[in-house]
Amino acid sequence: MTITVAVPDDAFLERLAPTVGDDVSVTVWTPGQPALANHVDLLVLPYVTSYEILESLDPAAVSAVQSQALGYDGAANFAPKGISFSNAVGVHEAPTAELALTLVLASQRGWPAIGYNQAAESWDRFAYPGLIGQRVLLIGVGGIGGEIEKRIAPFDVELTRVARTARAGIHSIDELPALLPNADIVILAVPLGDETRGLVDAAFLDLLPTGALVVNVSRGPVVDTDALVEHVRSGAVRSALDVVDPEPLPAGHPLWSLPGSLIVPHLGGNVGSMGARIDPLIRQQIDLIREGKPPLNVVVPA
Amino acid sequence: MTITVAVPDDAFLERLAPTVGDDVSVTVWTPGQPALANHVDLLVLPYVTSYEILESLDPAAVSAVQSQALGYDGAANFAPKGISFSNAVGVHEAPTAELALTLVLASQRGWPAIGYNQAAESWDRFAYPGLIGQRVLLIGVGGIGGEIEKRIAPFDVELTRVARTARAGIHSIDELPALLPNADIVILAVPLGDETRGLVDAAFLDLLPTGALVVNVSRGPVVDTDALVEHVRSGAVRSALDVVDPEPLPAGHPLWSLPGSLIVPHLGGNVGSMGARIDPLIRQQIDLIREGKPPLNVVVPA
Repeated sequence: MTITVAVPDDAFLERLAPTVGDDVSVTVWTPGQPALANHVDLLVLPYVTSYEILESLDPAAVSAVQSQALGYDGAANFAPKGISFSNAVGVHEAPTAELALTLVLASQRGWPAIGYNQAAESWDRFAYPGLIGQRVLLIGVGGIGGEIEKRIAPFDVELTRVARTARAGIHSIDELPALLPNADIVILAVPLGDETRGLVDAAFLDLLPTGALVVNVSRGPVVDTDALVEHVRSGAVRSALDVVDPEPLPAGHPLWSLPGSLIVPHLGGNVGSMGARIDPLIRQQIDLIREGKPPLNVVVPA
Repeated sequence: MTITVAVPDDAFLERLAPTVGDDVSVTVWTPGQPALANHVDLLVLPYVTSYEILESLDPAAVSAVQSQALGYDGAANFAPKGISFSNAVGVHEAPTAELALTLVLASQRGWPAIGYNQAAESWDRFAYPGLIGQRVLLIGVGGIGGEIEKRIAPFDVELTRVARTARAGIHSIDELPALLPNADIVILAVPLGDETRGLVDAAFLDLLPTGALVVNVSRGPVVDTDALVEHVRSGAVRSALDVVDPEPLPAGHPLWSLPGSLIVPHLGGNVGSMGARIDPLIRQQIDLIREGKPPLNVVVPA
């Protein structure tokens, strides 16, 4: 039996094909191309894609879909019955946590102003708060949250963790009104869902101390963008966002230019070492298909 | 007996004076002002100052000088006989290490380009190497080096440490020619001295892999600036510098504008929490003066 895998680009094919064995046929297909001519056992989506494209897939042509992303908000609405959908557990948690630390440190040490001063060739020395001793509220204790916790621990911060439900050492999201007034830095590492959509709204932001920093590495709609813009504009808070609603952030949007706003264009897991983590996951899925077993990390069952 | 302490500005005086007891008179004096009228037991220098000003001090008017900096290269050449000179151990190590991590992470995740793209309001997604799995060569295992090691450890890097002399787990600086070809990132955390001046020269840079990152949080002259410029211009290496030779970096200097160069204007220890660490040190010195004991951290004896 030959197993057929479709990957989204030639680079992926060239990396994967030599490593999977003679019984695996690797082909290139990406959303927008004509429908797949032959049945594929596993369709790997591009890293950044809309899950609406799932609607166009024919369950007779595709058995399983593998996302290269961790978040899968909306996938269940679009995946046709008969196709299983897996997310990319283990691929992005560490690099996304790394970017969260990058955003925290850069904001606490003077970016975006440092960057503007470099562009202006101006040696302008000013003190910024730094991270030492800051009170950090980490919302979300899943894979990304755990990797953030591990990385921020040696920076001498006061870390408070928040999750949906309280447990040992972790506060419930219902306690936020009491926790926010004591947070210098809030890091959002929650999945997008009904409970978290618009979590950071005007009421949330009003409770933060003046000048607090909001870092988002989860999904843009966790933050009410209009409320954030208003609070950053007034100087009430600062923000550092890898994800934003809408994406791409259009030119002219105030979050590009407000002095308290740092913007990264959704690069959470997008690092040079991503292949080193996604490729073994795909090979693992191929091994399971070969054994007639269901794929790993199925978040929308067939 | 009244103890007299001179501090460099009013803000320092207002912080310190209420906390030191009735037997301590705190006054403001800063280099460039007329000579001190009365004897001071302890003169606290501004955080950023040239040690040449030590030459103008009269040992009859000043017993001890307290620097707010950690580095003291040159102080021995200028401190008059009869005045002891202490550096600020314990004040800057952690925030300087914090900035080293900021520079490493920012460079590995796409700055300065990320900043230029924000200024241009351009949502331009590109992959950068990231820090996970990178081979990091940390040169210097003193106070700052130790704080860097502690903070970088959870980022899943391959860390190699280098010091003047080899010991368990630490390579000698003589081994650099063998180590540099395997370093993706070099972090400089050494004091400036005869052995380290110009350490990073053309020969050093030639040994690094293409695209390696050089981070300097020690002193500018540890790097041969002309050699660095040439290597950054060609794309052979990237650099991220908190310190540079000369300082301030003049407008028009290529390190401001080369795409592989990130510049911070010597802000290593300059964070909002600095007072929380320098003030207790000054109070400790006052306590020792009160007891007739020599000050702590004397690096140039009277």
